[in-house]
Amino acid sequence: MEKVTYDPIGEIRSPFEEPSAVPVDPDEPSGAAGRVELDPEFEPGLDGLDGFSHVTILAHLHRSPADTLRAHPPFADGLEVGVFATASPNRPNPIAQTVVRLDSIEGTTLYVEGLDLLDGTPVLDLKPFAPKPSLLEELETGWIGEHLDQEY
Amino acid sequence: MEKVTYDPIGEIRSPFEEPSAVPVDPDEPSGAAGRVELDPEFEPGLDGLDGFSHVTILAHLHRSPADTLRAHPPFADGLEVGVFATASPNRPNPIAQTVVRLDSIEGTTLYVEGLDLLDGTPVLDLKPFAPKPSLLEELETGWIGEHLDQEY
Repeated sequence: MEKVTYDPIGEIRSPFEEPSAVPVDPDEPSGAAGRVELDPEFEPGLDGLDGFSHVTILAHLHRSPADTLRAHPPFADGLEVGVFATASPNRPNPIAQTVVRLDSIEGTTLYVEGLDLLDGTPVLDLKPFAPKPSLLEELETGWIGEHLDQEY
Repeated sequence: MEKVTYDPIGEIRSPFEEPSAVPVDPDEPSGAAGRVELDPEFEPGLDGLDGFSHVTILAHLHRSPADTLRAHPPFADGLEVGVFATASPNRPNPIAQTVVRLDSIEGTTLYVEGLDLLDGTPVLDLKPFAPKPSLLEELETGWIGEHLDQEY
């Protein structure tokens, strides 16, 4: 199949300089404040996003090796599963999908909370986070549900 | 910023041959059944995914022109907003993020329901759909909430 090529639309500014510093424990979600800095040309694309409390960031995990199909989730003792059953950054196409709280937008800078991305991470896309309630009513959460006290 | 290049991990098989056939009305979600066909080499990456009821597909919208920063959501009369405040397929990096019900997995074929992707769409990544309940409690949904009878 043909390769797919994207031009990043901007970059993450976060307090995390190294992969080991990025928070991974879902019981203690990152409160890290930071910024999504888009290129100025994309300003018309942000109109209306400020009405949403949360934004999904799709970003390219530029420091992930993408060299394995297996993962050991950090919060599940010894469990090994397939990468596609996890959010592990080390996956064939290392695209992060992360939801952050949107505090404000100034020009093409988004001020956000709850970042779990390295400083300098290239941003590919932004979308409003607005899941359908009907989805949540019928959710089963596989190995995550067995390893966490999450209620749905 | 450097370009980002990905090799698709597989392909969508859906009943939709043309963009005009793809369902877009969130009040009548697509019940379309179809398949995600991954390349056989990725089988070890699927281990554990069958415990989840819903899967997020990240896919490359290969027939989207990516030529605008504005969108007219089809279910909101005359409203025009920025593409990053929508899920419009026509966006700078046309990456779809769509959640489907996972019926079963056979080898590297996923049988799914609720597809809104064209037949032949290249697949970039799969992740389990497992949002945190705390996120949903504090959600504001911008222009979507104003144009739909959704409850959160």
